Amino acid sequence: MNEPTSADAALLERGRQVLARQPFSVLVGARLTRFEPGFAELTLPLRDDLLQQHGFAHGGVVSYCADNALTYAAGGSTQGSVMTSEFKINFVRPAVGDELIARASVVHAGRSQIVVRCDISVAKAGLEKLCAVAQGTVAVVSS
Amino acid sequence: MNEPTSADAALLERGRQVLARQPFSVLVGARLTRFEPGFAELTLPLRDDLLQQHGFAHGGVVSYCADNALTYAAGGSTQGSVMTSEFKINFVRPAVGDELIARASVVHAGRSQIVVRCDISVAKAGLEKLCAVAQGTVAVVSS
Amino acid sequence: MNEPTSADAALLERGRQVLARQPFSVLVGARLTRFEPGFAELTLPLRDDLLQQHGFAHGGVVSYCADNALTYAAGGSTQGSVMTSEFKINFVRPAVGDELIARASVVHAGRSQIVVRCDISVAKAGLEKLCAVAQGTVAVVSS
Amino acid sequence: MNEPTSADAALLERGRQVLARQPFSVLVGARLTRFEPGFAELTLPLRDDLLQQHGFAHGGVVSYCADNALTYAAGGSTQGSVMTSEFKINFVRPAVGDELIARASVVHAGRSQIVVRCDISVAKAGLEKLCAVAQGTVAVVSS
Repeated sequence: MNEPTSADAALLERGRQVLARQPFSVLVGARLTRFEPGFAELTLPLRDDLLQQHGFAHGGVVSYCADNALTYAAGGSTQGSVMTSEFKINFVRPAVGDELIARASVVHAGRSQIVVRCDISVAKAGLEKLCAVAQGTVAVVSS
Repeated sequence: MNEPTSADAALLERGRQVLARQPFSVLVGARLTRFEPGFAELTLPLRDDLLQQHGFAHGGVVSYCADNALTYAAGGSTQGSVMTSEFKINFVRPAVGDELIARASVVHAGRSQIVVRCDISVAKAGLEKLCAVAQGTVAVVSS
Repeated sequence: MNEPTSADAALLERGRQVLARQPFSVLVGARLTRFEPGFAELTLPLRDDLLQQHGFAHGGVVSYCADNALTYAAGGSTQGSVMTSEFKINFVRPAVGDELIARASVVHAGRSQIVVRCDISVAKAGLEKLCAVAQGTVAVVSS
Repeated sequence: MNEPTSADAALLERGRQVLARQPFSVLVGARLTRFEPGFAELTLPLRDDLLQQHGFAHGGVVSYCADNALTYAAGGSTQGSVMTSEFKINFVRPAVGDELIARASVVHAGRSQIVVRCDISVAKAGLEKLCAVAQGTVAVVSS
């Protein structure tokens, strides 16, 4: 992996400003921890009010991470505005731990559609385990 | 549609008790408004802190509704415990309005897997518009 | 359901001409049996060479039916050219019988994207059973 | 990548025997070109009768490759019998070329469900381009 450049730092800063303007992202406490063209990493510290009845992160919380990371990864790879058209998520393991980490990478960037994959892990005491994988389409709505 | 029976009323009551034990569902304020074998309706009054930066319900909130409604519809059609394996969601319109309504119906209930579809609408001044459609698989994990 | 109109008959005829120009559809023997704006029905008589090792219709054959029916349903609802962007399919029952019947209906037609659902049944001695359900996005590539 | 072992060679041979018993795979001319625990590669030489009306490989053919490669990758990672439950595919580029190559890798193998991703490329004069990506679930139906 290359060292982050000042362009990357500026992108990360702009991405964080957008996240701060998403009230739902503020409610759940998501943080944008990496952001480069075609790649985004969201980190979500787990709290009691993000869980379901068995003490796992709620599927809706894991889905939020996927949805938002997909959109960021695509948004960072185009000058245009983006909107997530659709995604699919497979849950592979109950998400029990300290934080969720969603890493999304652009697979193919077309003129009007960007296809992205995302891995969502749960970290517990520094050890990460994959808990979900997603794949989706982000539409470029203006440019 | 048939009149709700006392069995349906008992199912709805049990479903609401489960929802009350999901801290994340309490955080976002979801309500289980209908629950019959193979069918579930979740209603989510929209609040400012459920939106994204353009004033629409956040995609993660819409996805939460789909995920949870799918799981309920499947759970109401089996005696076993259920866990959502995967789902796919298409967003068809920005969700702007007073509340989200997710209605999920079982398409096929197998012994170990239940396939469910879900329509998510946004209601504004009593008028509903479709904003997303989902399809997913719920695993029967014990019986 | 309304009686087919002469416009529907013309649409069906045009749809069949397109199908006849798809060499793969000719190879598998698909027939377009209904075609109206926003709805398409493909019928595929099952033959030995469309099966897998257990005597079921191959998943790839069922997927072909879904893919093509989705595209037709969308194509019949717009003046533009269409191309399927993505779809998701759940197999709910082994497809054993005389023919596959895929029925696709447009859920939402936007300016640039059309979302479609499809049910795929297998008919045996005139009795239909659902064997798969699909949901996908068709892009309007020109208009 | 490690050298193939004799166990891998035996697995590949068994995989090819299964493929030879799939009449549809024989009809389209698919070949199993790599097969290791958790990984499978299918190669499909393109012929005129596998195309659609614009000269691209038909979406149903690309979907067949995804479906079958997903199933193989999962099947090679378990002693049990497998059956594909569902998959999702995004088409990212028209498939024009000499052959399709589908490479599927297991993402997570659970006791009853295996989650797999697949990249489908089209090769033209030896140069590969990604034309679709898929993600799906394979059920372990007996063990």
